[in-house]
Amino acid sequence: MVGDGEEVRNKQVLARDYIDGNPKETDMYFNTSSISLKPIVGYGVAKVLESGHPDFKKGDFIWGVTKWEEYNLITMTESLFKIQHTDVPFSYYTGLLGMPGMTAYIGFSELCSPKKGEYVFVSSAFGAVGQVVGQVAKLMGCYVVGSAGSKEKHLSCFYLNKVDILKSQFGFDEAFNYKEEHDLDAALKRSVENLHINNLNEINEAKFLIISCIDIYFDNVGGKMLDAVLLNMRFHSRTAVAGMISQYNLDQPEGIRNLLSLVYKRIRMEGFTVYDYYHLFPNFLDLVLPYIREGRMANVEDTAEGLENGPAALVGIFSGQNVGKQVVVVARE
Amino acid sequence: MVGDGEEVRNKQVLARDYIDGNPKETDMYFNTSSISLKPIVGYGVAKVLESGHPDFKKGDFIWGVTKWEEYNLITMTESLFKIQHTDVPFSYYTGLLGMPGMTAYIGFSELCSPKKGEYVFVSSAFGAVGQVVGQVAKLMGCYVVGSAGSKEKHLSCFYLNKVDILKSQFGFDEAFNYKEEHDLDAALKRSVENLHINNLNEINEAKFLIISCIDIYFDNVGGKMLDAVLLNMRFHSRTAVAGMISQYNLDQPEGIRNLLSLVYKRIRMEGFTVYDYYHLFPNFLDLVLPYIREGRMANVEDTAEGLENGPAALVGIFSGQNVGKQVVVVARE
Repeated sequence: MVGDGEEVRNKQVLARDYIDGNPKETDMYFNTSSISLKPIVGYGVAKVLESGHPDFKKGDFIWGVTKWEEYNLITMTESLFKIQHTDVPFSYYTGLLGMPGMTAYIGFSELCSPKKGEYVFVSSAFGAVGQVVGQVAKLMGCYVVGSAGSKEKHLSCFYLNKVDILKSQFGFDEAFNYKEEHDLDAALKRSVENLHINNLNEINEAKFLIISCIDIYFDNVGGKMLDAVLLNMRFHSRTAVAGMISQYNLDQPEGIRNLLSLVYKRIRMEGFTVYDYYHLFPNFLDLVLPYIREGRMANVEDTAEGLENGPAALVGIFSGQNVGKQVVVVARE
Repeated sequence: MVGDGEEVRNKQVLARDYIDGNPKETDMYFNTSSISLKPIVGYGVAKVLESGHPDFKKGDFIWGVTKWEEYNLITMTESLFKIQHTDVPFSYYTGLLGMPGMTAYIGFSELCSPKKGEYVFVSSAFGAVGQVVGQVAKLMGCYVVGSAGSKEKHLSCFYLNKVDILKSQFGFDEAFNYKEEHDLDAALKRSVENLHINNLNEINEAKFLIISCIDIYFDNVGGKMLDAVLLNMRFHSRTAVAGMISQYNLDQPEGIRNLLSLVYKRIRMEGFTVYDYYHLFPNFLDLVLPYIREGRMANVEDTAEGLENGPAALVGIFSGQNVGKQVVVVARE
């Protein structure tokens, strides 16, 4: 903590230049300074040390867009929220209760109008957004299938089965490891078929029902997975596109060949960004806070201790090394 | 006309088999019979000669799904509408006032929520649906650009400039012939730029504004055109997908590479079919009938006289030989 007006040593993570493709650790460097060059920005939680803004007072905790440095001078408050509920861990406001959770809520609950008993598929289901989509969908009485890239060697050198955790910790009904599937269409059909068999205990009926069974697709990845999902979507189904992470760093995006499904099956597909919906944040809290307090929602985080480990943690995300939401602890209260 | 219970000679157009790819005239044949084999179906207008249905009485005129034969025995009435307004030509109920007009209305007015001053692009703008989209958009105060395949040699052996007619007859602000453009992205940018120059008389301002200028895309064709349009859509823009005629008869659909625009620009894209919206037909009539009676909506039809000319007319549609809505006159009242 720092006293009023006191000069402090401020460690920062800076980008050397515009980063082309996936970030590498060598694209970033450390600086100790009392002025800002161009530190990396991201969602963070912070304590207010001084403030001239009426909504944020000394001692308040906030979450929102912050810089990768120990002390932030924040002049833009559009994406800054005062933390009203401090009975949940602060780190939740970078994941379950922050931007990723809101993204899940908006895409799933607002754009896809879920109904009890519907079939939901989430790609990148183990990510900070995906794990919330799956849990909210279950709490609303939907059936949920997720895909993840599992059995990655984790930073801490153990092997982690994300598919198992999706089912055991987050309550997904089915999950598969897309990296082990050469035919995503078949993987989707098999997962939904398994679900039906579990639900119906009637293999013949299930076989009949599995054709085009996805009512809601929460898309985080785009590309080949989206193309396969389109073949398996039901009439009047809905797709919320939160991201297309498989496509961002390609020289040329993959071609999607199954858009004819949009016409044949009257599918709605909508890209969105959470920034347009922050006015609905109170509704989101009303929905999920009670579940969190009742212990009905899990939050899996991968914690890197110290700003020094931030670059490696960021690089790890792009190769799927993180387990759930990647958090960097700059300081503890 | 035929008296009650009288046996009549009934000419029909039948399909030889399942038609693979674009239909050829040799895929169809004529039959004279009093029983139905499998005549082709399509939207038609007919007079009721006998009826056991309380909603349709002898002497009524109806429009809806009918068979390609002189006399129809209609048992399914879900897609059958009694013609209430007989002061407009009957053929309008196969186009402007029928399924194509309703398709235009639903996709444009219901799904795309147009606002005055917005920029609308319509592909296959000269088709039965496209010409209504363009006209409704103009009546709502939007700017409209259309694409068509122009300068086709017409059946009657004259050359027709569809692009000119879109502007002169249907009031489109700009139009281009996609068959003459090797770069659809550039054609779209140029068309919207021309529009802005016309509107603003300020070339510099126009140059600045042309980036991503389409608020609403009414898609009839899919494929390369859709891919180019995605590059030119504005933030929070909307696409209604009525059809993807460029893709139906390909062995493998073309890959769409610009779906990332959905995320970056928060675009909504929705496939639909008019069958889900016929309950809104009265709203549609309320909107367009006054315009039609005031002479503010044009209707261009290509008329083939006699059921004998039906197969050639159907084949012509797939090579763009028809001028506006293709109508086959089976009998005149």
